Amino acid sequence: MTQYVYGKNVVRQCLYHNKKIYEIIMTKTGADPKLRQLMNEKQVPIRIMDRKQMDALLKNSSHQGIAAKIDDYRTYDMDEILAAIPEGKLPLLIMLDGLEDPHNLGAILRTADAIGADGIILGKHRSVSLTPTVAKVSTGAIETVKVGIVNNLSQTLEMLKKRGFWIVGTDAQDAMNYRDARYDVPLVLVVGSEGFGISTLVRRHCDYAISLPMRGSVTSLNASVACGILLYEIDAQRHPRK
Amino acid sequence: MTQYVYGKNVVRQCLYHNKKIYEIIMTKTGADPKLRQLMNEKQVPIRIMDRKQMDALLKNSSHQGIAAKIDDYRTYDMDEILAAIPEGKLPLLIMLDGLEDPHNLGAILRTADAIGADGIILGKHRSVSLTPTVAKVSTGAIETVKVGIVNNLSQTLEMLKKRGFWIVGTDAQDAMNYRDARYDVPLVLVVGSEGFGISTLVRRHCDYAISLPMRGSVTSLNASVACGILLYEIDAQRHPRK
Repeated sequence: MTQYVYGKNVVRQCLYHNKKIYEIIMTKTGADPKLRQLMNEKQVPIRIMDRKQMDALLKNSSHQGIAAKIDDYRTYDMDEILAAIPEGKLPLLIMLDGLEDPHNLGAILRTADAIGADGIILGKHRSVSLTPTVAKVSTGAIETVKVGIVNNLSQTLEMLKKRGFWIVGTDAQDAMNYRDARYDVPLVLVVGSEGFGISTLVRRHCDYAISLPMRGSVTSLNASVACGILLYEIDAQRHPRK
Repeated sequence: MTQYVYGKNVVRQCLYHNKKIYEIIMTKTGADPKLRQLMNEKQVPIRIMDRKQMDALLKNSSHQGIAAKIDDYRTYDMDEILAAIPEGKLPLLIMLDGLEDPHNLGAILRTADAIGADGIILGKHRSVSLTPTVAKVSTGAIETVKVGIVNNLSQTLEMLKKRGFWIVGTDAQDAMNYRDARYDVPLVLVVGSEGFGISTLVRRHCDYAISLPMRGSVTSLNASVACGILLYEIDAQRHPRK
């Protein structure tokens, strides 16, 4: 199946990564000269239309005047994700338990790219999928970060434990401060959904739980913000400053 | 002027903070027993309607079946924000330069509440305002974090410098790693907009700039994620672990 993905960053990343692009649709001003040149180099068919036609075709108006028709984003199975981790690298996977907001998934993909995480694991049920909104919010990270969709999160964690991973979950209860935990082992960071945190069954598979200090009146952070703070703490521990 | 704000968390926070509520509109199942009890205690007028009527009235469908009619969210001038900082507390203000996405502002309010920031400063032009979407995404933090809207960001920074604040900006260029900077002074953290970073004029007022390591192919993080990582680093420095 094919889909239209939109936004300048997304289209640029598709071109850079030599993704198969069936066509680019755009308004007259949808591409700056540099992007135009890249499109010409890659010899992608271009169709100019006006903004209203694009709004109608994409059923959306946040396309920034440019969209690319590409194959649906592929996902990976766990074997592929594990096989792609470079030799000698300390693995880091992110499991999102029940996350439903495409903006959060897009933002998490972006952070995962920024710190070089090895993949994101989603459950088949009650989860977001790789929609054009996710692609746009990810500003292209959907091209660089492998996403795996699994049938059963608990079984996947069991399998990963056998492969030497430690499982760290976010939880407000029975948790240590996130700055006190050690992350210099092969790691799966489990982040819960926007409303409900991580599920009981998944929580049971965690080797330990971490929490962020909450000094005010709200009881949790936005899921992509919490995930970003934790990923950058992991990154800081793994790349110590002098 | 009045407005409807919606979502269970937002309505609950309005009740907790004894905000003047003109009425609550809700579906039959819009409130759990605990929230119902709170509404009864506060003797707020309640109007039951069906979901379709609510969708139409609120021009939105993410209301979770409950909304409260309240006065518009008030903003604060800088004198009020500065006067409210507790004696002996190390002040922390967040300036958002050109931020336009209400989801990002809502998420930043939430993080600001969580670490006890003293206020958020927005420019009058090209900025988001305190809309119901911001309120909902903030999960109530809009009630606890003071927001100031100023005419001129540069002049505000000049004034704050004279009051003893240090200005730290986020920038990819000429910046030190965010973990190497010191935050144990009265601080204004300046975060740029989604697409353009901080403006040249504002950048000129920064005492120093900090950046987050970017190890992948994307060149920046989501604004609320970046802000969250920096705020929690500031928080960690100000609350050292043993």
